[in-house]
Amino acid sequence: MTSRAADLADRIRAFMDAHIYPNEAAFDREVAAGDRWQPTSIVETLKAQARAAGLWNLFLPDSEYGAGLTNEEYAPLCELMGRSHVMAPEAFNCSAPDTGNMEVLVRYGTPAQRRQWLEPLLAGEIRSCFAMTEPAVASSDATNIAARIEREGDSYKVTGRKWFISGAGDPRCRIAIVMGKTDPGAERHRQQSMILVPMDTPGVKIIRMLSVFGYDDAPHGHAEIVFDGARVPATNLLLGEGRGFEIAQGRLGPGRIHHCMRLIGLAERALEVMCRRVSTRVAFGRPLADQGTIRADIAESRMELDQARLLTMHAARLMDTVGNKAARKEIAMIKVVAPRAAQRVIDRAIQAFGAAGVSDDVFLARAWAHARTIRLADGPDEVHRAAIAKTELAKHTSSRANV
Amino acid sequence: MTSRAADLADRIRAFMDAHIYPNEAAFDREVAAGDRWQPTSIVETLKAQARAAGLWNLFLPDSEYGAGLTNEEYAPLCELMGRSHVMAPEAFNCSAPDTGNMEVLVRYGTPAQRRQWLEPLLAGEIRSCFAMTEPAVASSDATNIAARIEREGDSYKVTGRKWFISGAGDPRCRIAIVMGKTDPGAERHRQQSMILVPMDTPGVKIIRMLSVFGYDDAPHGHAEIVFDGARVPATNLLLGEGRGFEIAQGRLGPGRIHHCMRLIGLAERALEVMCRRVSTRVAFGRPLADQGTIRADIAESRMELDQARLLTMHAARLMDTVGNKAARKEIAMIKVVAPRAAQRVIDRAIQAFGAAGVSDDVFLARAWAHARTIRLADGPDEVHRAAIAKTELAKHTSSRANV
Amino acid sequence: MTSRAADLADRIRAFMDAHIYPNEAAFDREVAAGDRWQPTSIVETLKAQARAAGLWNLFLPDSEYGAGLTNEEYAPLCELMGRSHVMAPEAFNCSAPDTGNMEVLVRYGTPAQRRQWLEPLLAGEIRSCFAMTEPAVASSDATNIAARIEREGDSYKVTGRKWFISGAGDPRCRIAIVMGKTDPGAERHRQQSMILVPMDTPGVKIIRMLSVFGYDDAPHGHAEIVFDGARVPATNLLLGEGRGFEIAQGRLGPGRIHHCMRLIGLAERALEVMCRRVSTRVAFGRPLADQGTIRADIAESRMELDQARLLTMHAARLMDTVGNKAARKEIAMIKVVAPRAAQRVIDRAIQAFGAAGVSDDVFLARAWAHARTIRLADGPDEVHRAAIAKTELAKHTSSRANV
Amino acid sequence: MTSRAADLADRIRAFMDAHIYPNEAAFDREVAAGDRWQPTSIVETLKAQARAAGLWNLFLPDSEYGAGLTNEEYAPLCELMGRSHVMAPEAFNCSAPDTGNMEVLVRYGTPAQRRQWLEPLLAGEIRSCFAMTEPAVASSDATNIAARIEREGDSYKVTGRKWFISGAGDPRCRIAIVMGKTDPGAERHRQQSMILVPMDTPGVKIIRMLSVFGYDDAPHGHAEIVFDGARVPATNLLLGEGRGFEIAQGRLGPGRIHHCMRLIGLAERALEVMCRRVSTRVAFGRPLADQGTIRADIAESRMELDQARLLTMHAARLMDTVGNKAARKEIAMIKVVAPRAAQRVIDRAIQAFGAAGVSDDVFLARAWAHARTIRLADGPDEVHRAAIAKTELAKHTSSRANV
Repeated sequence: MTSRAADLADRIRAFMDAHIYPNEAAFDREVAAGDRWQPTSIVETLKAQARAAGLWNLFLPDSEYGAGLTNEEYAPLCELMGRSHVMAPEAFNCSAPDTGNMEVLVRYGTPAQRRQWLEPLLAGEIRSCFAMTEPAVASSDATNIAARIEREGDSYKVTGRKWFISGAGDPRCRIAIVMGKTDPGAERHRQQSMILVPMDTPGVKIIRMLSVFGYDDAPHGHAEIVFDGARVPATNLLLGEGRGFEIAQGRLGPGRIHHCMRLIGLAERALEVMCRRVSTRVAFGRPLADQGTIRADIAESRMELDQARLLTMHAARLMDTVGNKAARKEIAMIKVVAPRAAQRVIDRAIQAFGAAGVSDDVFLARAWAHARTIRLADGPDEVHRAAIAKTELAKHTSSRANV
Repeated sequence: MTSRAADLADRIRAFMDAHIYPNEAAFDREVAAGDRWQPTSIVETLKAQARAAGLWNLFLPDSEYGAGLTNEEYAPLCELMGRSHVMAPEAFNCSAPDTGNMEVLVRYGTPAQRRQWLEPLLAGEIRSCFAMTEPAVASSDATNIAARIEREGDSYKVTGRKWFISGAGDPRCRIAIVMGKTDPGAERHRQQSMILVPMDTPGVKIIRMLSVFGYDDAPHGHAEIVFDGARVPATNLLLGEGRGFEIAQGRLGPGRIHHCMRLIGLAERALEVMCRRVSTRVAFGRPLADQGTIRADIAESRMELDQARLLTMHAARLMDTVGNKAARKEIAMIKVVAPRAAQRVIDRAIQAFGAAGVSDDVFLARAWAHARTIRLADGPDEVHRAAIAKTELAKHTSSRANV
Repeated sequence: MTSRAADLADRIRAFMDAHIYPNEAAFDREVAAGDRWQPTSIVETLKAQARAAGLWNLFLPDSEYGAGLTNEEYAPLCELMGRSHVMAPEAFNCSAPDTGNMEVLVRYGTPAQRRQWLEPLLAGEIRSCFAMTEPAVASSDATNIAARIEREGDSYKVTGRKWFISGAGDPRCRIAIVMGKTDPGAERHRQQSMILVPMDTPGVKIIRMLSVFGYDDAPHGHAEIVFDGARVPATNLLLGEGRGFEIAQGRLGPGRIHHCMRLIGLAERALEVMCRRVSTRVAFGRPLADQGTIRADIAESRMELDQARLLTMHAARLMDTVGNKAARKEIAMIKVVAPRAAQRVIDRAIQAFGAAGVSDDVFLARAWAHARTIRLADGPDEVHRAAIAKTELAKHTSSRANV
Repeated sequence: MTSRAADLADRIRAFMDAHIYPNEAAFDREVAAGDRWQPTSIVETLKAQARAAGLWNLFLPDSEYGAGLTNEEYAPLCELMGRSHVMAPEAFNCSAPDTGNMEVLVRYGTPAQRRQWLEPLLAGEIRSCFAMTEPAVASSDATNIAARIEREGDSYKVTGRKWFISGAGDPRCRIAIVMGKTDPGAERHRQQSMILVPMDTPGVKIIRMLSVFGYDDAPHGHAEIVFDGARVPATNLLLGEGRGFEIAQGRLGPGRIHHCMRLIGLAERALEVMCRRVSTRVAFGRPLADQGTIRADIAESRMELDQARLLTMHAARLMDTVGNKAARKEIAMIKVVAPRAAQRVIDRAIQAFGAAGVSDDVFLARAWAHARTIRLADGPDEVHRAAIAKTELAKHTSSRANV
């Protein structure tokens, strides 16, 4: 770890101890008490504090707009933030999907687009969403995307139905990056484009908020949105027609590092609370920690988490050194490995907590639901495994035998 | 299957096709629309229809009060009801925890207790709860139970905190069977007693409703209840002081068959919808059903479910022929095997459904949360595995070698 | 269990206690001491004793030639024999591949073929092999079979290379049933035929004996055999040209029950010796049996074995009642489930035995190698899972939804 | 990787391509053809070639006697050698148990001991063994060790029975390091000592050679040895009475890195041959590589191996930087993770190879047996998991909560 990253890690750790963990219960109460779909005062306060503490926009590798950290430097910070996954990433202005959207705007946005959308996002004044997944098709295959982005004069008309659009529940969400087809007849990976659609554009309708395993994740939320011929200026198109797939690929790499490291942080915390719980809870005359199967669960969790972290850090390093494309296999691997490890570790903690584990008195059930969902987000495990196998098989078709 | 059981199975199947499945969405809407904690008119209508159809109280082996079916006859009916686990068991007056409580009253209740509580329960007029688990201790070890049932003159005074008391959210829940200690100084399994505590007894307070993986399961629900010196007549004690553990053991056997068969039914339905989904959903140019890993998932699910069902039916048969005590090992085994199988099968279905799978548009996420919870209810897997191993080891300590 | 089967089970159990187990070590010594590829005097003695005890040819459902037991009656006997898998099945004249070959001869053999081959097989005077698998192709796909059976006048000429031909190492092996193609241009499942080829036919050459995980399984063994234009009378063809696939299917059903039940018996014995070992072996001041993970291993083994046995018995019952074809899915399932369960159970026992477990001082390592091999014999798991999924998917393509 | 290590890796790779792989079959033939328990001329030739190529004693961190590489530098070289695990490590004079024994002599040997034993070992002229495990006790608990090392005048008398003493089958094995108790009444970890016992000492008897899963691993082998009052000069005691446990601990760290990296190399090769096999083998009209489950197997193997390697390299780095003691948890983790990963990867390859996979035509079955055995050698998984859990639990007993 560079000394800069180590220093930031110390400061984030201290900030979380001082401000995040002590406010988690109050956040839940604030959401439960008022209109679930309004931003909380608690997070707004935390944002101001984090910004004042210089812990702001750390995710952005671009040093003009953000911290300028490498993936390898930022990843451990992401792990720390993930320990309080509901509140901390937003407090540090490092939460999905805004991070990915800001990166897209830094890389592909015009100066005007940056002024209008990137700057308020960087300032934490507005939020954004990324509208790709559709209910009617298997969206893991991007060529299935049915939404249309059609040129009409100086505008594009956007038509389609999207769902599980995370973050769209928040009234501060002002801008959507929408993936759709500009040319369904083009070559497979040149059919799609991405376009900026302000949420207040006529024809953009939030149909409903969806829940995951019973959680609505308010005020962030996951929306079903209909784009009913929503018209935006032609200049809102990002990078050019047919470049949507390319943008999606570039966006995904760092996002996967972030998702995985946050999940590892969350699972580390689950393991910690499990260790403490079993040390004090007594059954059949001795602490649960004295049971061999509990100890085996702890050991398996430690092994899975350490391996998942090393693999994710390795992928981050590769992205920094050889680029996202060359690190494709590693990025696919962490997307399978880390959520799976997190899910198992959290599940073991739930089991150790008994009934409390499935309730909302501890963070575990919600954390599990989140980890489970990540096994589907950005492509299900099956798609990534297929990609890994393809690369692996390709290595050996022309080489020597050694049997 | 006996012809009587086969006939009942046909009629339940027909009833579910005609009345249950078509009303599931309406039930969800009714709960969502009004006061979540009121009984629904839909279920009340279904109850009347089921009763009229002669599909009522089928769970009760006692032929004076119920259907008089054996465990082996009832188990497959339970599987069918479990397919719509939120609504169907109650519609047939076969839902937990009422079934277990009614059995306790049939076996151990006085004529007066039967008149007051059993009859309205059998009529589906009131509901009941079973208050055993406590937040402060590992309740899988019954000797940890801290609630007290203290004799004071002609009354017992009940003091303690219980949680995850399922069914207590429903205003029709009028009676609790409470487990507590009458004599903490007695021999390990003679300390506990069970007592009938009407829910309107002064000192009985529902503190809050708990959720499991984000689901509140309204209007049934899972309550935290404080018994703050609640006083009931001494005649409310069941069977006698120090007999609580014994009643709990007798109560658990059939209940585990029911839980397991309902879960198997639920998982069967998950596998069915998975099969249909993958047959029509297309990715990368072919139905998901053409992917080898999807097929492997389906095959594994079929193998797990058939094995879990055969084992549960085997346990039911043993209970009918050699009794609950001799079938103890088998009852412990199904408690581990069936929820685990159901959880895995449902999880594979969720994966095949993608984002829809974690949402509430299909029944899978909620079904999974239920199956996961059953891995803790009535004792965590760990306790049952320990019991199985104990029996297994005992078989071999005095026998021949064959190495 | 019928009383006849129960009586046979008792007698087999007694026979194994009296004659089989006490002679296992001596058998190993006899094989090690002399020419590994000669029959042992010990097994010959056991055969005479078993025959005298009326425990002979129990496998054969045909009551003219054999015991006339149903699959359901025979299966538990098979489990008992499997406990000493190297020696016991042969002692009772119930060992593969002879059992399958005898069944083929009973069903499809001409009177002359029965006289020549079936009778000495039933008498335990000769042995036989079944030559299907080929080294050059994936033989799980029967259409890959490359061996040719070509009509030339009154003869057929057999040409091809087969391997893992079990039992061919024994000099008493006199007859092979060979699978090959008579008409490579016919419809997929009508290309193959089966033919009787005496092992002393010119052109039949045993190239070498193969080992599995280091075991040569002498004197039974697994041979690589070349059929170099071996010529046999045209009357040696079984059932008719193009009927090979059909015979193979009919032969496989009971054979899979046998394999699975024998493996379950073997794994039961592994669990028994594990239980005894951990009860007496001490580490860190207490018997291994006091370690929670060891207990969990025992419990998991018990659950897996009971489920595998119930499923196998269920498949046997189905074969008896609805026939091999209708029981196809169940037969595929046991082929995956039982070897996998046996393998896991034996592996846990190995782990509990430490270094002794991988040695030949206990039967575990060899038993494991056998169980592992059965996961490939008669088709790898993958083929069976695909078949199960196909049946499962077919059930749901035209039926109602229930989502 | 340092440039020195990278250069050595290139040269080892080239050496293996040129000399090792092409001679594997010939080695097997030479062992099979002659006296199994004699060194092969092939390996002797390879040793001379490797030494001439400067690829000799690379394991030794001590730069006076060996290559002076760090654990992190040597680990990847070890992975390469492990690809041909039977022959390559010895060819480079880097094979167990000699490497561990040489390290012990470098660290704790007197000048005279080094001259007599270390120098010929470094020259590859003799071999050695390490006699710790005993048949009568669970040797994973060092306090169980029953062998005695008793002072009598100027000698020590060594009495005990040891087994699975690897390398003792080779007639060049001249020296044993024996672990036994000098003072059974001392504190738990001060009872044991280690002593040098020449194999030709009167009273040292090789009772028999043991096999693992049917493999005798000749000419290296695994011996059962009786020390029947073998007398050696008192100066043969290493480091001092009661220091045996301490030496064992120091010896184990690097040895575990070596074992794990060799297994990873072996499994990498298994994955390679699997990829090639499935690319060419056809079933049901397409290469096995087109089957989704095969691809999933490949992807899982890649993920497991990359994680196991990263964890092992991490442990090696920690040993280099903070020392064996501080890296204890990581060393325990790799001992569980790497053999398990290797075992799974090799098992998948076996499955893909079908019958060939369990035979000796490919290296897989023997490689699997080796990986399985390593899950027991140097302590079974259970012991390591317990150690990991202990460290993990200790971290959290005094720290803050974050629930």
